[in-house]
Amino acid sequence: MILANPNFANIQSSYLFANIAAKVKEFAAANPNAKIIRLGIGDVTRALPAVCVEALRKASAEMGEDATFRGYPPESGYEFLRDAIARTDFQACGADISADEIHVSDGAKCDTGNFQELFATTGITVAVPDPVYPVYVDTNVMAGRADAAVDGRYPGLLYLECDEANGFVPALPKQQADLIYLCFPNNPTGATATREQLAKWVEYAREHKSLILFDAAYEAFIRDPSLPRSIYEIPGAKEVAVEFRSFSKTAGFTGTRCGYTVIPNECRVFDAGGAAIPLAPMWKRRQSTKFNGVSYPVQRAAEAALTPEGQAQCKALIDGYLANAKIIREALRVKGFKPTGGDNSPYVWFHTGGDSWAFFDKLLREAHVVTTPGSGFGRCGAGYLRVSAFNSLANVEEAISRMMRIL
Amino acid sequence: MILANPNFANIQSSYLFANIAAKVKEFAAANPNAKIIRLGIGDVTRALPAVCVEALRKASAEMGEDATFRGYPPESGYEFLRDAIARTDFQACGADISADEIHVSDGAKCDTGNFQELFATTGITVAVPDPVYPVYVDTNVMAGRADAAVDGRYPGLLYLECDEANGFVPALPKQQADLIYLCFPNNPTGATATREQLAKWVEYAREHKSLILFDAAYEAFIRDPSLPRSIYEIPGAKEVAVEFRSFSKTAGFTGTRCGYTVIPNECRVFDAGGAAIPLAPMWKRRQSTKFNGVSYPVQRAAEAALTPEGQAQCKALIDGYLANAKIIREALRVKGFKPTGGDNSPYVWFHTGGDSWAFFDKLLREAHVVTTPGSGFGRCGAGYLRVSAFNSLANVEEAISRMMRIL
Repeated sequence: MILANPNFANIQSSYLFANIAAKVKEFAAANPNAKIIRLGIGDVTRALPAVCVEALRKASAEMGEDATFRGYPPESGYEFLRDAIARTDFQACGADISADEIHVSDGAKCDTGNFQELFATTGITVAVPDPVYPVYVDTNVMAGRADAAVDGRYPGLLYLECDEANGFVPALPKQQADLIYLCFPNNPTGATATREQLAKWVEYAREHKSLILFDAAYEAFIRDPSLPRSIYEIPGAKEVAVEFRSFSKTAGFTGTRCGYTVIPNECRVFDAGGAAIPLAPMWKRRQSTKFNGVSYPVQRAAEAALTPEGQAQCKALIDGYLANAKIIREALRVKGFKPTGGDNSPYVWFHTGGDSWAFFDKLLREAHVVTTPGSGFGRCGAGYLRVSAFNSLANVEEAISRMMRIL
Repeated sequence: MILANPNFANIQSSYLFANIAAKVKEFAAANPNAKIIRLGIGDVTRALPAVCVEALRKASAEMGEDATFRGYPPESGYEFLRDAIARTDFQACGADISADEIHVSDGAKCDTGNFQELFATTGITVAVPDPVYPVYVDTNVMAGRADAAVDGRYPGLLYLECDEANGFVPALPKQQADLIYLCFPNNPTGATATREQLAKWVEYAREHKSLILFDAAYEAFIRDPSLPRSIYEIPGAKEVAVEFRSFSKTAGFTGTRCGYTVIPNECRVFDAGGAAIPLAPMWKRRQSTKFNGVSYPVQRAAEAALTPEGQAQCKALIDGYLANAKIIREALRVKGFKPTGGDNSPYVWFHTGGDSWAFFDKLLREAHVVTTPGSGFGRCGAGYLRVSAFNSLANVEEAISRMMRIL
């Protein structure tokens, strides 16, 4: 008899985005003339940078000629892209990362989701922030590292609580944490971590023989030069941290699909006897067995985003979203809320003063604006709301003007 | 302490393609003037169909305008592509598959590799053919369904032996097999299965409450109208079989990346109590958690391959490879070998009469032709050689002419 993976039954169905979609659909049906503005899901809305479109066009034409056609791409990505990433995204900001430590993929969600396969199912403690990007949690539950949820939390996981008191940067745990998920700039809170804060986590991981999975998908939104963009700006991080990056929010690639994972050659895990094992060969083995590389035209488009011209176009794109975020943040301040994020992040996060869903409903019904209830991201998100800056300036201005009238 | 997944240490390193690459590199260095022709790896060599290039170009341009830009794709693929697949690849050949049973991905290797996550780690017997596409085996070893290999075989796996006596279509096992991997047209043997043979497997799976994972990545090479192209042409298969398909060998997408998995709504697995559970929601949950959809331009290119014009261009591409395969097969026959495959498959497979690697070495040294030793695909491949038809006609003719001189 073919038995299902029993861990799937333990996953708490995340009704968050399904619930939002259902509520919006119902409202739209009852109010066909309402012009609904979406500041909910974290998806970009603006066109790809022109250099990326041109690179896609050119590479597609190459694929149409026998002489320039390309078959299976290297599983870890073409040299031209890995070189450009190492140079532009790391060496330029003082992080000593080389091309052979870069592993190109079809997105940071896939990589953060698949990466847990490299670790033991039992005998390790997984630490996740609360509130949290649900992928970190759900993938560990599917793998059997947690029991069925009780009161919205999975026994077996260690929750790192984030709130206004700690600036949404979690304190070091008192217990042993072996696999630690961190994300800065954070989704959903928009919070950033300082060099000193990340250095403490690196020190913890070195002392406790832990591994940090550092999700830096939103690093391109950092404008404050004192904030680290990569965990490898912290001395000692290379032994204890893996970093995930994405072209999704940097170059608008959510529908084009490219990201990458950095595994320094020094990065290690341990066998049951306590002997260190290099981590990178395990990921290479995983990827060469279960993945077949990223589309060649897409890799050329990603390379184009890393040229000086591409970087300028990406910056303009992000400047636009950051201008939106500023409008949202300032408007909320005027109304007496205390928002975090939105300065070095596309997300603005604030306590509504009441229930997340009640506030969501009010904004939908009275302002025709869609947001995301913070309670959907974990127990510590209760009462909060996430507002995304991913939209046109005109739509954000209109949404904020409506919100100002009703708040 | 962060513990590595101990199962990774059980994987037998497949030195097959690495060994081949090393041998070719060494030979090329010693013989810089030798014009080496590669009939080894199963990668296509000819340009994408013109309709696909045009679709890539057009979709890339759409991504460059705010008004037509697309963000995150649906995890299971755009409706336009799923509809085209259901209509063209299934309904047209009498298989009753609908668009909502299609799950688009970035390739059949990824899907066949990831799909085992849906099943229990213990308490099921996994059956794999021998010789076999290594992905089926290695992914189950990584998941902990087998112990370390002994004499090249993993205790815990059930090997379905394929040889000349059974025409490389394995007999039904005497034991209980719960998860059964089948691949027709086969990689590496090039063998095909008749309706009657597949019907027996479907009957077995129904009786034994098993699940068949049917890899049909090479179905487009089938020219014999009596052979089934999909397992869903067999009555009763929808409850007990999942089918994997790819645009890689059909439309030359190895470097463009698109495939799909079919999970009929009736398809079921079981919980520990023996209750049936529908399988499709589990895959949807897996994909929506660990995958973020396929690049929009690539999905448009795949759609183009399914138009009447695209189908004609794909057929022309495959006709070319089949013409190569015929040349290879006939030449081997003239020399007294008994090849299988190559008529409804891009691979020609034959017993060398001696050792696989010795024959490989002879062809490399004396004819400057690269092939694949059959022993690399499993114990039953010992003595065999795989010759791939993926190359230009001129290269295949030249390679065969050299081989004829030395054999």
